[in-house]
Amino acid sequence: MGKEAVGFIGLGNMGAHMARNLLEVGFKVTVFNRTRERAETLAASGATLAESPRGAVVPGGIVITMLANDLAVQSAALGENGFVDALGKDGLHISMSTVSPETSRKLAREHARRGSHFLAAPVFGRPEAAAARQLWICQSGAAVGKQRAKSVLNTLGQGVHDFGEDPGAASVVKLSGNFLILSAVEALAEALALAQKNGVDRTTLAGFLGKTIFSCAVYKNYGRILADRVFEPPGLALELGMKDMRLVRDTAEAVQVPMPIADLLHARLLSGLANGRGHLDWTAIELSTAGDAGIDTNR
Amino acid sequence: MGKEAVGFIGLGNMGAHMARNLLEVGFKVTVFNRTRERAETLAASGATLAESPRGAVVPGGIVITMLANDLAVQSAALGENGFVDALGKDGLHISMSTVSPETSRKLAREHARRGSHFLAAPVFGRPEAAAARQLWICQSGAAVGKQRAKSVLNTLGQGVHDFGEDPGAASVVKLSGNFLILSAVEALAEALALAQKNGVDRTTLAGFLGKTIFSCAVYKNYGRILADRVFEPPGLALELGMKDMRLVRDTAEAVQVPMPIADLLHARLLSGLANGRGHLDWTAIELSTAGDAGIDTNR
Amino acid sequence: MGKEAVGFIGLGNMGAHMARNLLEVGFKVTVFNRTRERAETLAASGATLAESPRGAVVPGGIVITMLANDLAVQSAALGENGFVDALGKDGLHISMSTVSPETSRKLAREHARRGSHFLAAPVFGRPEAAAARQLWICQSGAAVGKQRAKSVLNTLGQGVHDFGEDPGAASVVKLSGNFLILSAVEALAEALALAQKNGVDRTTLAGFLGKTIFSCAVYKNYGRILADRVFEPPGLALELGMKDMRLVRDTAEAVQVPMPIADLLHARLLSGLANGRGHLDWTAIELSTAGDAGIDTNR
Amino acid sequence: MGKEAVGFIGLGNMGAHMARNLLEVGFKVTVFNRTRERAETLAASGATLAESPRGAVVPGGIVITMLANDLAVQSAALGENGFVDALGKDGLHISMSTVSPETSRKLAREHARRGSHFLAAPVFGRPEAAAARQLWICQSGAAVGKQRAKSVLNTLGQGVHDFGEDPGAASVVKLSGNFLILSAVEALAEALALAQKNGVDRTTLAGFLGKTIFSCAVYKNYGRILADRVFEPPGLALELGMKDMRLVRDTAEAVQVPMPIADLLHARLLSGLANGRGHLDWTAIELSTAGDAGIDTNR
Repeated sequence: MGKEAVGFIGLGNMGAHMARNLLEVGFKVTVFNRTRERAETLAASGATLAESPRGAVVPGGIVITMLANDLAVQSAALGENGFVDALGKDGLHISMSTVSPETSRKLAREHARRGSHFLAAPVFGRPEAAAARQLWICQSGAAVGKQRAKSVLNTLGQGVHDFGEDPGAASVVKLSGNFLILSAVEALAEALALAQKNGVDRTTLAGFLGKTIFSCAVYKNYGRILADRVFEPPGLALELGMKDMRLVRDTAEAVQVPMPIADLLHARLLSGLANGRGHLDWTAIELSTAGDAGIDTNR
Repeated sequence: MGKEAVGFIGLGNMGAHMARNLLEVGFKVTVFNRTRERAETLAASGATLAESPRGAVVPGGIVITMLANDLAVQSAALGENGFVDALGKDGLHISMSTVSPETSRKLAREHARRGSHFLAAPVFGRPEAAAARQLWICQSGAAVGKQRAKSVLNTLGQGVHDFGEDPGAASVVKLSGNFLILSAVEALAEALALAQKNGVDRTTLAGFLGKTIFSCAVYKNYGRILADRVFEPPGLALELGMKDMRLVRDTAEAVQVPMPIADLLHARLLSGLANGRGHLDWTAIELSTAGDAGIDTNR
Repeated sequence: MGKEAVGFIGLGNMGAHMARNLLEVGFKVTVFNRTRERAETLAASGATLAESPRGAVVPGGIVITMLANDLAVQSAALGENGFVDALGKDGLHISMSTVSPETSRKLAREHARRGSHFLAAPVFGRPEAAAARQLWICQSGAAVGKQRAKSVLNTLGQGVHDFGEDPGAASVVKLSGNFLILSAVEALAEALALAQKNGVDRTTLAGFLGKTIFSCAVYKNYGRILADRVFEPPGLALELGMKDMRLVRDTAEAVQVPMPIADLLHARLLSGLANGRGHLDWTAIELSTAGDAGIDTNR
Repeated sequence: MGKEAVGFIGLGNMGAHMARNLLEVGFKVTVFNRTRERAETLAASGATLAESPRGAVVPGGIVITMLANDLAVQSAALGENGFVDALGKDGLHISMSTVSPETSRKLAREHARRGSHFLAAPVFGRPEAAAARQLWICQSGAAVGKQRAKSVLNTLGQGVHDFGEDPGAASVVKLSGNFLILSAVEALAEALALAQKNGVDRTTLAGFLGKTIFSCAVYKNYGRILADRVFEPPGLALELGMKDMRLVRDTAEAVQVPMPIADLLHARLLSGLANGRGHLDWTAIELSTAGDAGIDTNR
């Protein structure tokens, strides 16, 4: 028996790798991307091209969204030529990009009204991890969607972690994770400034931490990036990181949870934007931390 | 050839394990502790008891300090019945507790005046790690001390990481590490509050993080402690954690490095003290984070 | 010659006093309020009752809005039975409540399309000041609106301060002012906690400050409120103060200005909401400040 | 009957005016200043010159200190050639500069042991206010000292405000006041950045605030300074302002009061020092606030 047909909407730095991985293991993939060039590259590898989000789905089929923000997902799903009505009864929408829990919950309600299913399944990992099928996936939503999504998600990542039935839960986990990553970045930036002005070598310190008490991906990778200030090309652009911290703050406000570190990170990102650093990697918040300490970051 | 004689001053939660490990591999250990009971336990295992810091050293020998704070180290070394003068020419002082870089630099100067050597060699790890010889050790100071300290340090930990000749450098590394650990704790506390008020299970989230993007000791251990709020018995008491953050802030001020997260952590610890939580584990700063979010932490 | 007819929409703690003042000096006032009871009280004083925002205006007339938030103003102006289309050519909308600069700019554009005018004229002052015609008014917008609004604004306040032609400018001034007021409140709360735990009497300190370096309304009034913790009845409820700080943060984000004190105030208000204090005066953020210091505020 | 003899130690920007005022109303003033030139200027106006702090006092007399920091006061009082022993029984030390409550309490104890008295009487006001006898004075200590100090304090200021018997209380009040002033500065700086990036004129906004809700000295004066960025010559140099905020933080830590705004102010000052602005007025923390917002402050 052949694999299912899958619509894939959003072929950015992450999505293009993910769609290609589905193609390679035998899924029939129909792709849509607002910028057509990116879709054409995948067509050369066997993907079918759709002219609209609606064109990427078949009744009762599966569709994955991997888009830049909440608005883009809502527009692809519910806007003009959106796919939700075309997907119809028994269809499954797997939402894999970072959106607010509110958007996830709203989409789940819209699908439920039409007899289709919604599964929130955001991912952790940089583009290299997406290419290598090493993404970490967290999911939440109704059981029927999880069952059907299994083969797709197992193709894309190295494990699926379940967070229950609330479609917003996985979004909260994803936002929490991104918040924790950027928190670690700011803390590392402060520690490295303290070290540098005490004459301690930044690279040696970052290396030590990544080999000992913090021997995990985030500290190893970001420690190196921060020690040497390698902010180009961006893994995640600072202006996109801002979007994530805004979602964290909005979600925190909605449930009345003061998060002082989130406020600090937001201020750092905002300062980065105000000083023309929106195109750099989001770890470039380090330049504000170092600047406050009078460190010359051009050397 | 037998192993060297070593004086060991300070037999707290960490020091007692370390001194015992030295005894077990054959070092001749003379111990001193202000509270005599703790020393007597080690005497039963073969240690010699000294009546004062001075009594724990022999001319030209090795002495290790593992004491609560800067004042205690300075007093043991330079106060009444302090060991520095008795240690004399060619002696070696290995300072393994958390002190300020200024104290380390000052002690190095005092030793240099007398022809003895000073090595800063603070450690990372909870008491269990000390017992299991799994400490991570960072050292800095003159080469001659490092050479001579090798067999001692290799006995106590799972690796020695070098930070050059400045005797203050290893202290900066130690303070940076403790700062990063408590930063991770506060960030986790905020993320867990966000999750909890969104209906996401705290333990599941902490487990997910420790298995994926943050699969390292700090996040695994503290994630579990924070998710379940296990603040007793303390690994490091909040009131001692305060001492460390104070050293971080003082060091940062001395070299003019603003550290907003350090200020936040200090405020959390201070709030913990003001609310009668000084005896709990330092991760109990979570109670302030949760309290700000209106979470009932008694349930 | 008689005075102009004026529509007045929004009869809350502030608006009811303002409408009454207009009536008393001879304006013909038609009022609308969502809760009809408040309008009826004014009808007894000579006001005409309208059944909708649209019913409160006459073609080419003047209409004042004094409503709870941006949405309420936009809805009254542009929603179902909104007044903008009925106001028509040469009409004047004076917007006196606290809204975002974006809402002011949008309303100005909507009026311009229809040949009517928009004047932003938010006010400073508590309800007592509104009753006593002691409001401070800041205005911005096109000159024609300012000219026509003069007699109305002079009736309501003790002076009109002009901020140019950008209809958003006066909103920015109003938000800045509210931000500065709550900043002073938090700073006072911290200083009073410091004083109290040093044995200095709170009331004496607040009195001293209000008589010397800070002899102005904000410090005199709020100093007294804070020293004695008189948070009921609220002058401005904490949950409404939250709305203002949210507008400050949104406006700051839009123009990329990090405002760390605004973030702190937002966190304090959010903590107040999370702990069931939304109905108290917004100065009740002091309870968080005091709580962090372990001060028993029930005594 | 002639006026009392008074020793005056510390002839800085403030002290020189104060000593001159005492001379002018007829006190016999003996002055000491570490930099002799400043003392000689006063000698030309009738002051007697002393060669040491001790030389500035007579047994049982009055001595005033107006020095840069805690160390300077302690040294003048208790160091080599210090005045406390020479002052002796029934003498009175009026301490008018900004010191920690701990220093005040310690000095009071030292005086009590010798039968002399200590009165804490720090002042509010810039040098112009000192010259014009417009200082605001807050005092605390034993009643006998207050009685005797009356004529001196009435000569120097426009009113004496009493804070009870604890010699540390007036120091707490002084520190609280300076903290509140710098808090207002930072809040103003944030509001002015928000306004500027919204196209609102800084000077107009500052003027409006100083005439309406904040019509008091601090907002009037600092509003103008901040709007126009007039940071030279300094009224209070940033590096001295840092000393005050350090005292605030130390005092807050001693009594376990978290003060997040004080932490922010400390970070701003530290950033100023790190960026070479220690010689500017302490309000130059605005340059960090504006820099974070990407505002070009060189224009």
